[in-house]
Parts: sequence; structure tokens; C-alpha cells
Amino acid sequence: MNFMKFFFKQVVLVNGFVCKDPKVVKADDFSLSGLDMPGDTGNKLGFNVTPANVNQIPGLNTLGISMVRIDYVPKGLHPPHTHPLATEILTVVEGQLFVGFVTSNGEDGNRLFTKMLKKGDVFVFPQGLIHFQFNPGYTNTVAIGALSSQNPGTITIADAVFGSNPLISDDVLAKAFHVDKKTVDWLQAQF
Amino acid sequence: MNFMKFFFKQVVLVNGFVCKDPKVVKADDFSLSGLDMPGDTGNKLGFNVTPANVNQIPGLNTLGISMVRIDYVPKGLHPPHTHPLATEILTVVEGQLFVGFVTSNGEDGNRLFTKMLKKGDVFVFPQGLIHFQFNPGYTNTVAIGALSSQNPGTITIADAVFGSNPLISDDVLAKAFHVDKKTVDWLQAQF
Amino acid sequence: MNFMKFFFKQVVLVNGFVCKDPKVVKADDFSLSGLDMPGDTGNKLGFNVTPANVNQIPGLNTLGISMVRIDYVPKGLHPPHTHPLATEILTVVEGQLFVGFVTSNGEDGNRLFTKMLKKGDVFVFPQGLIHFQFNPGYTNTVAIGALSSQNPGTITIADAVFGSNPLISDDVLAKAFHVDKKTVDWLQAQF
Amino acid sequence: MNFMKFFFKQVVLVNGFVCKDPKVVKADDFSLSGLDMPGDTGNKLGFNVTPANVNQIPGLNTLGISMVRIDYVPKGLHPPHTHPLATEILTVVEGQLFVGFVTSNGEDGNRLFTKMLKKGDVFVFPQGLIHFQFNPGYTNTVAIGALSSQNPGTITIADAVFGSNPLISDDVLAKAFHVDKKTVDWLQAQF
Amino acid sequence: MNFMKFFFKQVVLVNGFVCKDPKVVKADDFSLSGLDMPGDTGNKLGFNVTPANVNQIPGLNTLGISMVRIDYVPKGLHPPHTHPLATEILTVVEGQLFVGFVTSNGEDGNRLFTKMLKKGDVFVFPQGLIHFQFNPGYTNTVAIGALSSQNPGTITIADAVFGSNPLISDDVLAKAFHVDKKTVDWLQAQF
Amino acid sequence: MNFMKFFFKQVVLVNGFVCKDPKVVKADDFSLSGLDMPGDTGNKLGFNVTPANVNQIPGLNTLGISMVRIDYVPKGLHPPHTHPLATEILTVVEGQLFVGFVTSNGEDGNRLFTKMLKKGDVFVFPQGLIHFQFNPGYTNTVAIGALSSQNPGTITIADAVFGSNPLISDDVLAKAFHVDKKTVDWLQAQF
Repeated sequence: MNFMKFFFKQVVLVNGFVCKDPKVVKADDFSLSGLDMPGDTGNKLGFNVTPANVNQIPGLNTLGISMVRIDYVPKGLHPPHTHPLATEILTVVEGQLFVGFVTSNGEDGNRLFTKMLKKGDVFVFPQGLIHFQFNPGYTNTVAIGALSSQNPGTITIADAVFGSNPLISDDVLAKAFHVDKKTVDWLQAQF
Repeated sequence: MNFMKFFFKQVVLVNGFVCKDPKVVKADDFSLSGLDMPGDTGNKLGFNVTPANVNQIPGLNTLGISMVRIDYVPKGLHPPHTHPLATEILTVVEGQLFVGFVTSNGEDGNRLFTKMLKKGDVFVFPQGLIHFQFNPGYTNTVAIGALSSQNPGTITIADAVFGSNPLISDDVLAKAFHVDKKTVDWLQAQF
Repeated sequence: MNFMKFFFKQVVLVNGFVCKDPKVVKADDFSLSGLDMPGDTGNKLGFNVTPANVNQIPGLNTLGISMVRIDYVPKGLHPPHTHPLATEILTVVEGQLFVGFVTSNGEDGNRLFTKMLKKGDVFVFPQGLIHFQFNPGYTNTVAIGALSSQNPGTITIADAVFGSNPLISDDVLAKAFHVDKKTVDWLQAQF
Repeated sequence: MNFMKFFFKQVVLVNGFVCKDPKVVKADDFSLSGLDMPGDTGNKLGFNVTPANVNQIPGLNTLGISMVRIDYVPKGLHPPHTHPLATEILTVVEGQLFVGFVTSNGEDGNRLFTKMLKKGDVFVFPQGLIHFQFNPGYTNTVAIGALSSQNPGTITIADAVFGSNPLISDDVLAKAFHVDKKTVDWLQAQF
Repeated sequence: MNFMKFFFKQVVLVNGFVCKDPKVVKADDFSLSGLDMPGDTGNKLGFNVTPANVNQIPGLNTLGISMVRIDYVPKGLHPPHTHPLATEILTVVEGQLFVGFVTSNGEDGNRLFTKMLKKGDVFVFPQGLIHFQFNPGYTNTVAIGALSSQNPGTITIADAVFGSNPLISDDVLAKAFHVDKKTVDWLQAQF
Repeated sequence: MNFMKFFFKQVVLVNGFVCKDPKVVKADDFSLSGLDMPGDTGNKLGFNVTPANVNQIPGLNTLGISMVRIDYVPKGLHPPHTHPLATEILTVVEGQLFVGFVTSNGEDGNRLFTKMLKKGDVFVFPQGLIHFQFNPGYTNTVAIGALSSQNPGTITIADAVFGSNPLISDDVLAKAFHVDKKTVDWLQAQF
């Protein structure tokens, strides 16, 4: 619904969400439970993202921010990805985390910035840059992140490049990654 | 410094921050430690805000987001306040929290929305609205919040209204709060 | 309706307003009468705001500006309030006006800026800051203001804090204003 | 100076204005006098604009709004013009005013919307559209206008087209206005 | 449809366009053919604009950019005009082009900037400024331009001023252009 | 320099560019030559981008648009990349081009949209999405593109992921791409 209208008796865009009668808006429209519960990390990469964005909290619509809980098993990886329309700021609540991002092209470009984070550390991943998080430890890691969009979107590089539907032609990928098509086909087979 | 320029070989506003030579930028410019440590709650209200914004993390400049840790002793209160330029999203990491915000004027306006939050609950405080957080329990509470600005600013209502420097004339406040000047003078004396 | 589309054959957001057939748009959609008439100041505070925003002038939709006429009887007060999403600029057309705003928290924060305005003076109230206007004279005052939003919204501090629906708990307010609950209950009773 | 920084302890762009030490900011930085005084209408067109924008009121910097007083003698004209970056809302404080704007190109485009305004009437001129104001009466007219920019800029069509420095070639203008070069040269000679 | 939602699983404004089921979106929604074909220059001015904006390419909605092909016969003119909400950047693909824009009012204002462009030259026309393009040569000219809006809109000065529907009163135009009404009536008769 | 100030007598941010005295601004500050000349495609991938952005055209500063010429030899590839802050619209001026982009994660996400473009075709690559262009033909291809930023920045996926400085650890990439470290080391060795 148009919560801004509700807040400020102001009419603002509703971003396509169905509008709700202000008279029936309730506190729960601004709330969500369960960010204290580990997510399901039973996957190849050993990580899980529990979102708290406009899809879970309708009251976030038009407000330009959202939150996530991220769980990592030992050696769990949130693989290289970008958020096309958001910057992320993250703090480690439990465990340890090795994080990094790569700057864009250009003279002195594609620089990798990494840091080993311990409990209580905060790190920033600037909008649109490729970044990753890896748990190098022997215990689970939990992080709380925030993103500068009510619905930031994520592009996981490996999935988008080697696992798209349909697949990107191996002519293109072989040339892009300086390998032969067999290697590309084999890489694509992993997805 | 102009980190955006650095990220994208793109020149963007530096918001008045001193510019730093991209060649000497380091991961620490995007990082901060200590959000796992309780802040000093030894004050009348029994709460503390530990900020992680552009003043602590220069790399946040121009990125439109920041984070805070908030500590509350039992009966600790983050009193009614607004963030002039940011929405806040918050999750309870430890303890319990009674939260609320008030909508703006108008027919069906000045409505109070409240919720009792337990560990793992998330709540949203929309931009510019007066809101508060209170720990009604017998144990400490810890929350992690995020705000949609690299430097959101805070206006604590009671301090701005009754504790400004110089004081707002008691003519004005007596009329505004429908009380006599003595009461206003006495209220101001509390600050 | 989507006036921007109409103006520029351009499609822009309609902020939830019902769309009108461009062929039937007329000059009156961009117009309003009556800002020369005093508003009804027959209230406790002795002031009145006559709005000229998107709710009165549909053509303002998406255009980011609005106007108001404010009337003040002698000793009339527009009490401390904020506009969550707009800056205000005001000029005194008749009479005199004592105005002020308070800056936000921080070292050297919560500073009060005041000025006595006479006919023809202009004053600015920056976005999100608490501000007030008081007529200290023995004659009526009239001001014309403009706000940087087609529908700026207003939060009257005293009403939002002590007169919300439902009321904010006196535990919270007693602590916030450093007074006992009886005083809070009594203050709330004034609203 | 960076007033936003000052207001919110927040660092924002200063738009190239010299920065001033917050400790020496004063209420006068947000104020201006004289909008009650008629401007000098002793010119061919019989109108005058008295501005109250960031060039007169430094505190307006970054705040996105400004004000003007416009005086018109009988038959005085504010000739067709645009504000490249602002919408204008105007109210007639004294006298009468015939106003109009023209929509952009396209099927059903270049439509003229006009209205005769009397004291207390309000009218809106949408961003970027060509508009004019004419005093058809036998008495002076005074209007107060507001614009959605701290420094909106104005492009007077006749001056920019026929009075630019250097002049636009008469080849171009003759073709554009479907007249011969002599007519263009003569029109340019008027400026 | 809401393509942004589709791209990023993100919900953003649809600018009033009919929404389409993401499952049926196809590459053609982001594509257009024919920019290699000359447009119809059989008009008084000898130029033609072939647009590639959101009206031809629905996928451009919300993306803030569009393209045009412009054809000019020898002596063909794109007459003085503005784009109320967009900057234009243009390159000459074939032939030659004399271009110019005029700055806004003010001391040292209404300055004309011109340049003779040959094949491969690029030129910028800043948002809201009056600009024109003229082919002074003996061969056809083709330019490719881009604009910073998915639907920039155009206001052709001569048409809006002398050819509006209904006409602007000759009182107003005579005074604005420092000519007599007969001249205005005659100028209007050309449109 | 602050061209916007110059255009509109308006003071706007200069994005860190050195400011130039308006009196010495010239048409060349808004112009560039050479987009008709093929770029140097003598590289592994057989493509070249010739930019026309704020780094070449100072007058583009703050104007939010730029242009590029892209050359492709037969089988030339502009490999998968993103523009963190811009949408791209492109037209084929000569030859043929196979283009594609991949949507973001999510149910029905990571969809590949491709199209074979011929001379005169236009295609859109939405902000932040991974996209590529490949010349499948036996003749050179030339495209003119425009981007919705005065300095859009580019992140070439393969370079940022496998060719960063320093390299991303092979632990991370092996896991992300579901291959062993040897393969990653070998892939990195290609860059």
C-alpha cells in the first residue's frame, strides 16, 4: 500500500504494490519475526540469506532500505555477486568472515580490497561492485547486513554467467574467459 | 575522499570530505570494529547509540546508508526522536524492546503504532516520523539498526524543544503545550 | 492525472492519483482561489493554515512544490512542528512574526535560531527541523509560505507526543521529559 | 556554507559555495528583508522580479526552494520564459493578472492554458514549460511566487532567441519563424 | 510493464505503463529496428527526428535514457527548441552540422555557443537550454543523438510561441517581441 | 568547471572537477572529435571502446549522459560486463551484432535475453545487469552507444573475478565456480 501517503497524508508512488486502506494498516505491516533463527545452509556453498525487505515487510515500500541475516557454515561462501541498485553495510554477530570487493576497470582498476572480520566488525560493499564473503573458520558465522534499497536484488556472477537460462553461447564465454569451449561447456555443466 | 570516483573511475560529489589519493585507499577505510561491545549506558535514560556512519567509516561517503548498535539497560529508553533525512530498520539481537512511531497530522493522523519486539524481530521507523524504543524487561537489550543515509542526524524531541540553546521562550512553549509558564520553566529546568 | 505526461507527452509517476483524460484537463486544474481570505483562527492557538497543495490543485502532482497562507491573531502561535519531507520559505505580508528553528543533536547541536520578522521579511525553515512562528504583536499577522513538496505533511510536536491516538505510555514520556507520570498524565489531559 | 551539515551534523554538498564556520552562522543567513517594497518597473515591459534565492539567502543552499516578488504596472508583462530546473507556484497579492503556459510538442501538443487571476488566486507553471504573466488592468499588480529550486534560473524566450550574444544567424531564425532575413534582422534590432 | 521489477525482482514505478506478465517479456521489448533508414524530411524545415524512446521501446521504462536519429536535407534546420527534462548528446554520422545553444538570463547571460560539426564530431546540449541544429552544406546530414530521459519531450520555440492552440494574445507577443500587433498576427499566420 | 552554474547562473555541485572561469568557457568544452575513426581493435578480444564522457568533454559534468563508439572485428567480443551506475542504449551503424543480458537472481531469474542486431537496430541494456556484444559476422561492426551517466564506469566480469589485483583466493573462486583450485589457478593465469 501507499504507506508514505499514510504516514504523511502524502501521496507517493506505490511501486506497483496493491494499495491497502490506511484505516486497516497495523504495526505488523512494519514488522517481521525470525531474524534470530539460522537459515538453511544445506547447499553446495554452505550459506543462506534470510531477507527482511519489502517482500516480507510491506511497510518498507518507498522507504529505500532493507535488512538481511546471513548464515555461513565453516568454509561457507557467499560467492561473488553484485546488488545492481544498493550499497551493503554488514556486521559480524557471531564467528569470523573474510570479505572482499573489486573496484571497476581503468588504470589502477580491478583492485581487490579484503579484510578478515571478527565479531563486531563492520564492512561496506559499495553499490554495483562485485563482492564476496567467506567463513574461513571452524565455527558457524552469522552476519546482519543492511542494503540501501527496499528491494536490492542480487546478481550472483557465476550463476548469471555460467548458469543462465538459456546458457550464454560457449563462443562468447570461451573468448571472454580465454579458455576453449570444452572448458566452458564443462564449467556450465557444474550449474 | 571521493570513494565513488575511486570505485568507478567516476567523479562524484565528495560532500565536503577531504579527498584522499586513491592510491592510498585501504580496506580499513570501509571498515570499523567494536559493534560487539556494549556502549556506555550510564546516563539518565539508560541507553546508548554506537554509530557506524561516514564519520567513523569514510568509505561510506556518498553511499546512502549507515548502521548503529543500540544498548538499553532494563527500563532504558531511546526517547522520542526523528531522523530528518533517513528511514530506520532495526532488529533485536538480545533482550526485548517496546517500540513505536506516530504518524503525521491530519484526519486520522497522529496515530501511534507500537509493538513489543523479542529477539529476532525487525521493525521499521519511516523517514521523519517521531519514534521511540523502550526496554520494558529486567535484562539488557541490544539492537542493530540501519539508516538510509550515510549520516542520518537525530533530533531528540525533548532536548530540541525544552533544552535548546538558547531556550525557546516560555510564551511559545506554554501555549504549545497548553500549560502555564511556570510548568514550562520547570520542564526546561530538567534539561 | 498524470499531468507531466500531459505537459511533456511524457509518462511519469502519478503518485496514486486517479488519472484524468488529457483531453479534458483545464486551466482550473492548475489553479485555486481564496488565498486572500483570512482562515478561521478561532482555536486555542489562534492560528490557521490555508493550504494550496496537490489535494486542492491536482495539477501540482509530481511537481514538488506547494503554497500556504498562514493567519495569526495577536499572540497567535503556529506551535513547534516539522515537515518530514520539505523545506519551508515564508514571507510576512501583514503584521509581525517571531520565528525560530532548532538544529539537530550533536556537539554544538540543538541550537535555536530566532528572528523577529516585519512585513516584507523572508525566512527559511530547513527540511525536517523543528520550527515555530509566533505573533507577538497587537494586530493580526498574515504570511505566505512555500514548501518544497506537492504535499509536505506536518507533524505538530505537542500533538504527536502528548496527543497521539492511542496515547504514548506515561512510562515513556515521564522518562523522556524527566518528569513524573502524574505530570505526563496531566499534560496529556490538555490534548 | 554547508548549512545542511550544520543543521544535521550531516555532510552534504555545498554546491560550490564557500563554506562558513558553523560557529558563526546566524539567523540572518536564513533571512532577507524588503519583499514588501515594489521593484523598479521602469523598463520597456513594465515588470520587475525581486528574487529571494540562494544568492540573497545563503542558508537556502541545498534546500531546493526559493521565492520571488513580481511587480507589474498596468499592461506590464513578464514575457514568455521558462525555468529550466523549476516549477513555479504564484499567488496574486494585489491587482489582477492574466497568466498562461503552453504544453510541449506532440499530437494534441502546444496547447495554451490561460486564466485571469484576481487577488488571492493561485496558479502553477510546470517545470520547463513556456509561460507568461500580463497585467491587463489599470492598477499595479503584485504577485508572490515560489520556485522548486534554490536558484531556478530563467530563460526569457525573446531575449535568448533574438537578443543572444552573439546573435543567432538570420538564416536559422528566418527559417525557424517562417519569415525573411530582413524581418529577422529587424526583430533582432529591437533587442 | 514493470521491467525494473523484472530485471531485479525489484518493484519500482511503472510510470503509468500497462504492466505485462514478466513470463511473457521478450528481447523485442528492449529493441527497435530502422534507425538506419532516413526519416521523411519533406517538410518546410527539411529535417526529421526518428525517436527510439519508451513509446517505441517499452523496456526503456524507468531507465532514464533514449535515442534519436535526425536527418537534415541541405539547409535543413532543427529549429530552436528545448527538452524540458533532458540533456542531449549528439554525434554527426554523415555530412556536416552547425549547432548552437543559448545560456540563461543574467549578467553575462544569453550567450550563444556555436560550432560547425563534421562527421565524427560530438556536441552536448545541456538540459532546458534553447538549442538548434542547421545543415549548411550541399549534402544530407545524419546525426545520432541520445537524451537523458526515457521520454524527453520537446518544445519547439516558434511553434509554442506563435503556433499554440489557441494562439497567445497579440497584446502579449507584441510587447514581448517589441513589435506591433500586425507583425505578430502576420508571424502567427505563418504557423 | 561548474557548467550548470554557467548555464543557469545556478550553483550546482562540480563533482570534484576544477572550476573554470565562466568567462573563458568555450564551445569546445561541450565538444569532441573523432567518433568517426575506428578504435584500435588489436587486442585478444577484437573490440575497442572510444569514450565521449566527462573525462573527454568537461561540459558534460553534472549532465548525466555520455556516448561511446564501439568497434568489433569479425568474431570480436565486448565480454560480459556491467555499468554500476548506468543503463546503455546502443545502435548498430555498420555490420551485425549478437547482444544479450542476464536478469538478476530469483525464481524465474538469471534469464538470458539475446538478439541478433543488424544495421539500424537499437538495443537496451538495463542498469547493473551483466551484458555482452559479439560480432558473429565476417565484416567489422561499428555501434554507437549512450549511457545514462556522465561517467558510467565499467566492470568486466572476467577481469574483475579472475584478473583482480591482488587475485581473489582460489578457495573462494573454486567454490564459487564449482571447480578445483587448479582450474581456478589456470583460469587466473589467462589474465
